[in-house]
Amino acid sequence: MESLNYTIGMAGTAAFAVTAVLAVAPKGIDLFGVCVMGIVTAIGGGTLRDIILGVPVFWATDLNYIWVALGASVAAFAAQSLFTRKEMYRLLLYIDGLAVALFAIQAANKVWTLQFGLPLAPILLGIITAIGGGLIRDVLAGRQNLLMTRELYAVPVLFGCTLFVVAMVLFPQYQSIAGITCVMSIFIFRVAAIHWGLCVPDWLSTRPKTE
Amino acid sequence: MESLNYTIGMAGTAAFAVTAVLAVAPKGIDLFGVCVMGIVTAIGGGTLRDIILGVPVFWATDLNYIWVALGASVAAFAAQSLFTRKEMYRLLLYIDGLAVALFAIQAANKVWTLQFGLPLAPILLGIITAIGGGLIRDVLAGRQNLLMTRELYAVPVLFGCTLFVVAMVLFPQYQSIAGITCVMSIFIFRVAAIHWGLCVPDWLSTRPKTE
Amino acid sequence: MESLNYTIGMAGTAAFAVTAVLAVAPKGIDLFGVCVMGIVTAIGGGTLRDIILGVPVFWATDLNYIWVALGASVAAFAAQSLFTRKEMYRLLLYIDGLAVALFAIQAANKVWTLQFGLPLAPILLGIITAIGGGLIRDVLAGRQNLLMTRELYAVPVLFGCTLFVVAMVLFPQYQSIAGITCVMSIFIFRVAAIHWGLCVPDWLSTRPKTE
Repeated sequence: MESLNYTIGMAGTAAFAVTAVLAVAPKGIDLFGVCVMGIVTAIGGGTLRDIILGVPVFWATDLNYIWVALGASVAAFAAQSLFTRKEMYRLLLYIDGLAVALFAIQAANKVWTLQFGLPLAPILLGIITAIGGGLIRDVLAGRQNLLMTRELYAVPVLFGCTLFVVAMVLFPQYQSIAGITCVMSIFIFRVAAIHWGLCVPDWLSTRPKTE
Repeated sequence: MESLNYTIGMAGTAAFAVTAVLAVAPKGIDLFGVCVMGIVTAIGGGTLRDIILGVPVFWATDLNYIWVALGASVAAFAAQSLFTRKEMYRLLLYIDGLAVALFAIQAANKVWTLQFGLPLAPILLGIITAIGGGLIRDVLAGRQNLLMTRELYAVPVLFGCTLFVVAMVLFPQYQSIAGITCVMSIFIFRVAAIHWGLCVPDWLSTRPKTE
Repeated sequence: MESLNYTIGMAGTAAFAVTAVLAVAPKGIDLFGVCVMGIVTAIGGGTLRDIILGVPVFWATDLNYIWVALGASVAAFAAQSLFTRKEMYRLLLYIDGLAVALFAIQAANKVWTLQFGLPLAPILLGIITAIGGGLIRDVLAGRQNLLMTRELYAVPVLFGCTLFVVAMVLFPQYQSIAGITCVMSIFIFRVAAIHWGLCVPDWLSTRPKTE
C-alpha cells in the first residue's frame, strides 16, 4: 500500500513536471526555465501546504521528488514532440488527474492527523496542495491560471476532500478505506471532466464584461 | 473592547471578501474561483505575516475568519447587483477602510509584542497584513495591483503604523490608547482619500513611459 | 573577511534595490510603490529561503538590510536620471552581479551548514535566494521575468552553487576557499555574459509559438 502510494506519487510528480513544460514551452523558454517551471509545478503546492502548516517541507527528507521532477522536465524538453502526440498527452492528463487526487487526499490526511484547523483546513490545504504548484507556474509564466477558466480541475478536489472530512467525522476508524474511496472519487470525477469536456455551468459563473 | 475588535475584524473580513469578488467578477469567474479569491483576499495578508513571523497562522485556531470570508464570497456572487449599487459599494469601501486600519494596527501590535525586528518590522508587517491579500488576489486574477496605481490605499497604513511605533517608543504604557488613535487615524485618512478621490501627487511618482 | 562579506552584502542590497526601481519606473509608480519594490527585490529571495528552511528570516535580527534597501530606493527615485546614465548603469549591473554571486554562495553555505536536503537543496535555495526577489518584483509589476528570457542571469548561479556542493563533498575542509572560488566563478561568468551580451543558445530553448 505504502509503496503503491509512493509509485503513484512519483509518476504524478513526473506528470506534473511534464504537463508544466508543455504548458510553458509555446512561450519560448530555455532549459533552465523549463527545469524551474517543472520543479515548481511538481513540488510548489506541497511546499505551500507545509509552510502554512509550519512543518518541514516534504522534499527536504526525500529529494526523489525533485530528482524525478528534474528528470521529467529535461525529458519533456528533449522529447516535446513525443509528449504532445494526442494519445500520449491524453495519458499524461489521466496520470496528472490520478496524481492530483492522490496528493489532495494525502494532504487532507496529513492535516487531519496533525489536528490542524479542523474541519476546514484539510479541505483548504488539500486544494492548495493539488493546484498550488500550477498556480505559481502560471503566475511566473504570465499565463491565465485555472481559477480564471471554467475547467473542472479543482472542483473534483474540493468534492473529494470534503467527502474525506465527512468520512473522518462519521467513521474515524476507516481512515484507509475513506482515503482510497476519496482518491478514486476525485479521479473518476476528473476523468469524466476530461472525457466529456465538462465545465462549470453558466449560472455558476459571473458574466465576463466585454471591454 | 476585545469583542468590539472581533466584531470589526469579522465585518472587515467580510468586506475584504466582497470587494474581492466585485473586483474579479468582470473577468468572468466561476463560483469556485470566486470563493478562492474571497478567502485569499481576506486571510492572505495575515497569513503572510504569520509565516514571516514564524508563528502559527491566525486562522488555524479560529476558523470563523474563513467561514465568514466563504459566506461573504457566496453572498457577493449571488447578489452582485446589490453590492455594486452606488451607496452599497461606498459603504463597503468604508468598512474595508476600517478593516484595513484595524488589521494593520493589530498586526503592528502583534509584531511589537513579539519584539520582532523592532522598530521596522511592525510597520512592514502592518502593511503586508493590510494589503498582502489584495496583492495575491490581483496577481492570481491578472489584474493591475494597487502598487502600480496612485490610489491612497497603503500610504495611510504606512502613516498609521509608523505613528504606532513612535507612540510605543515614547509612551509604552499607553498601548491601548495608541492603538485606537492609530486605527482612527488610518481610517480618517482613508475616508478622506475615498471622499475627495485623493491620490499621490505627480512629483512623488515616476513618469510612465508611453510605448 | 566577515566584514568584507558584510560590505559586499550591503552594496549588493543597495544595487538590487536600485536596479528594481529602474526596472519598474517606466511603468509609472509612486514613491511608496518604489520603496516596496526596492525592499521586496532586495530581501525577497533570502526571505523565501529562510521560510522554506524554517529558520527566522535573516533581516529580523539585522534591519540594516531593510534600511539600506529603503535608502537606495529613495535615492534611485530621486536621482533616476543619474542611475540610468550608461556608465553608471553598467557599474550597477556589475555590483548586482557580485551581489548575486555572494548571496547565492552564502545561501548554499547556510543550507549546507544546516545539513538541509543535501546535496540538492543548497543549489535550489542558492538560486531562489539570488533570483527570488526579482521574480516577486516582476510578478507584482506585471513585467516579464527572467525565467521567460534567455539572459544568462540564473545559469551562472546554478553553475557556481553546483561547483560549491561538489567542492564541499570532495574537500569539506576547504569551505572558505571553495566559497571564495565559487563567488568569483559566478561573478566572472556573469560579467562575461554582460560584457559580450551572451545568452542561452537556440538549441537549449523551445521555439516560441507565433500566435
